[in-house]
Order: sequence, then structure tokens, then C-alpha cells
Amino acid sequence: MVDHPYIVLVRPQMGQNIGAAARAMLNFGLTRMRIVDPRDGWPNQSAVAMASGAGRVLDDAQIAPDVAGALGDCAFVFATTARSRDLTKDIYSPEEAMRLAVQKIDAGQKVAVMFGPERAGLENEDLVQANALISVPVNPDYASLNLAQCVLLVGYEWMRQRSHVTPVVHEMAGSDWAEVQEVDHLMRHYEDRLEDAGFFWPEHKSASMKLNLRNMWSRMPMTRADVQMFHGILRQMVRWKERDR
Amino acid sequence: MVDHPYIVLVRPQMGQNIGAAARAMLNFGLTRMRIVDPRDGWPNQSAVAMASGAGRVLDDAQIAPDVAGALGDCAFVFATTARSRDLTKDIYSPEEAMRLAVQKIDAGQKVAVMFGPERAGLENEDLVQANALISVPVNPDYASLNLAQCVLLVGYEWMRQRSHVTPVVHEMAGSDWAEVQEVDHLMRHYEDRLEDAGFFWPEHKSASMKLNLRNMWSRMPMTRADVQMFHGILRQMVRWKERDR
Repeated sequence: MVDHPYIVLVRPQMGQNIGAAARAMLNFGLTRMRIVDPRDGWPNQSAVAMASGAGRVLDDAQIAPDVAGALGDCAFVFATTARSRDLTKDIYSPEEAMRLAVQKIDAGQKVAVMFGPERAGLENEDLVQANALISVPVNPDYASLNLAQCVLLVGYEWMRQRSHVTPVVHEMAGSDWAEVQEVDHLMRHYEDRLEDAGFFWPEHKSASMKLNLRNMWSRMPMTRADVQMFHGILRQMVRWKERDR
Repeated sequence: MVDHPYIVLVRPQMGQNIGAAARAMLNFGLTRMRIVDPRDGWPNQSAVAMASGAGRVLDDAQIAPDVAGALGDCAFVFATTARSRDLTKDIYSPEEAMRLAVQKIDAGQKVAVMFGPERAGLENEDLVQANALISVPVNPDYASLNLAQCVLLVGYEWMRQRSHVTPVVHEMAGSDWAEVQEVDHLMRHYEDRLEDAGFFWPEHKSASMKLNLRNMWSRMPMTRADVQMFHGILRQMVRWKERDR
């Protein structure tokens, strides 16, 4: 039973920021950290030194080589971003996002929140793997939240929303949501077949076409049955083609 | 016209914490800092170094020798405290406190929020000069908010309450939603091609398969670009088949 969100630090650079993030988390009862490809390896002594009383969050942290590996078993993923991007994806305030997270977790789903590396933040390739974005409403003329502060605000909203009474809203009856890795397989299935079919053309546009396609799939609220339906459609089109050969 | 609260740092010790507090403030549009009896005097070079882009908050900071001097012109004062004290005084969450602050400031009153020194926090002699207390709801087994983080959470709630009425809702940036008739065309496009391809089989299941497919399309939150993408995918698969004939 996972009763709170995973905090996923993507390619963090300084160990002390990982430690500070652990402290920020534990202030609000968050204990599940996942770390993608930490720059200085793992374990990290600067992280431990900074974490002080929150060392157990680091002890239990799970390390993954890439974003897909860290998110594979999650049903819903938020990505935090400072800038609004030109990706078509829902943008939530921390408040709205954590309200939604409470509902999803109460419905038995695993939820994750991704945070990018210091300075640069998440890249588009990371963002397209999320179902929705979180943007903290800050002074447009001065936005300087650091990693631990960003984790802190999400944790604060988590605790705030958790302690509210939240009626479980519009979860579809009896729905069985697809996990990230299932959507990932679907993405790759389409990408491979469409590659064979010559869809990604002209060549210089193929990277952005693939990015758009990935973004679209991750944004769709799909059940396992939907994913199977989309696989089935594609398989049938291929079978049709082969039969006529 | 003072349109936001004063942030009052009482006997802060480390210059860098004063600088970090200035940054935290400016993230949420707070620019009025008052400092009571800073341990290392004023101005403070470590504070300036830490503040980076928020230096003007420090430049404009007002210094007072004692709490009474810093609060004298204020109509309502909150004091932040980690522990609940045995003082008989209203205790607000940051959210409730900043909601009240908005009301008071809109009514033309000067409002201040006091923060104690690192580690020790405010003393009872300070607290009694406040009209009400603010307590951040943290994990009772692990409370380790530092000064700047405490300022950050109050600033965050200030901005949230100030901008209220309008929670920033999750309309996707620049999205151009598909109309029902466009989704309907898409449905029929898939239904026709999949019919040709022999997807709806066995015969006795074809009606329910079509129903499921229609239900899925109508449930997906699609933009016009998504609809075009799905049309394009299908067209390309057909083209691929024809080419190989």
C-alpha cells in the first residue's frame, strides 16, 4: 500500500541538494524518493551529511538509470517545470496537483512527482513522459526556487490536501489505469511500425514528430483496455498489409 | 499604500539566512523586510552575497533595535512558531493567516509576520507582542524547516490567497480543443478503415467493439493537432499497405 507520492529527482547534481530534498520531504511525511542517474553516483556522502535526521529517506531511496526506469510502475506522473513549455499538457498548481494526487492514491494508484536537475530543470524528453505538469505560481520577474524549496512546496500542498476531506471525484467506475511502462510499450509499438511505414518524414522533422507523438500518448488518460485497443488497431493494420502482399 | 505584509526577522544570526529569506520573499512578490537586532550588524556582506537577484530587498530593509520598534506602525502582527505554546492566542495555519492578511491589507491596515532566530525561534517576550500565531502543519516526528523555508511557505500562501478567486486552472497552454464533429470524423475514419482491415471480428462482437472504440475516442481530451496526428497515422498505414501491393 503506497499512501503518498514518489518524489523523483532526475539527474540531480549536488549531493547536498539531494539531502536537503530529503529533509524537505520528511517535514511533510513524504518518505519515498527515487533518483535518476545522480551525477556523483550513489551513495553520496554530501547527501547524507546534509540530510541529518532525514537519513532514512536516503537509505530507502531507489536509484534508476533513466526516467522510464524510475516511473515504470506509476499510474500517474507529474513533472515540475518553471517555464510554461509549448508542450500540450495540463498544467496544475501545486494545490490542484496534490488534490488530484490524493484522489488517485486513495483509488489505489501509484503517483510520482518528477523534479529536474538544478539550474537546467527537466528536458522535453523527460516532460513528455509525464501525464501532467506542475508549475509553482511565482513572481514572473523573479523566480529562484531551488530544488529543495520546490520539493518543500509540493510536500506542503500534499500535507494540506491530505488532511482535507476529499471526496473521490470522477474516477471512472471500475477503471483499471494503464501504468507508465504499458504506455511506454504502446509508444514504442507505434513508433516502430510508423517508422517502417515511413511516417516520420521529412527526416529533419522526425525527431519533433516523435516527441509530439510521445507527448500525446502520455497525456491521454488510458485504461489497460484502451492500450490493448490501440495495440490491436495497429496490429490489425499491419496484418492487413501483410495479407495483401 | 502598503499592499503586502512586512516580513520581520527577529535577531537573525547568519547573514546567509537573511539573504536566503530575501530570495524566498521576492519569489512571491514580497519586498518589505524589517530586521530586529541582527547578530552580525548591518549591512552584512554574506547576506548580500546570498541574496543574488534579490539584493534590492536587502537595500530597502529597515533595521530596528527591538521588536517593538519594528512593529510599531503595524495594525496586525503574526508570529510564526514551531511549537504550540501555552500562550492563549489564536493559532492560524499559513493559509488562514494569509487569507486574513489579505482582508486586513485590503482594508488599509499594515500587517507584519515575525520570524524568530535560527534554532531557538521566537521567545515568549516576542510572541506576546503578536496578535496571533502562525504554525506550519509539519510532520510531528520531524520538523526541520529553516528560516528561509518558513518565509517561503508564508510567501507562497500570501501569493495564493492574494491571487485567489482565481486558482490557476489547468487549461493546457495554447491548446485548441477538437470539436465534437472533428472527433466524430476521426471515429468514422478509424471505423471505416478498420472495417476494411477486418478488425471488427468475430461478427457477433463487432457492435460492442465499435461502441468501445467510440467511447474511447470521445473520452480522450484531444486537441485539433492530436486529431490530425491520429488521422495521419491511419492514412500512413493505408498508404504503406497500398505501396506494397
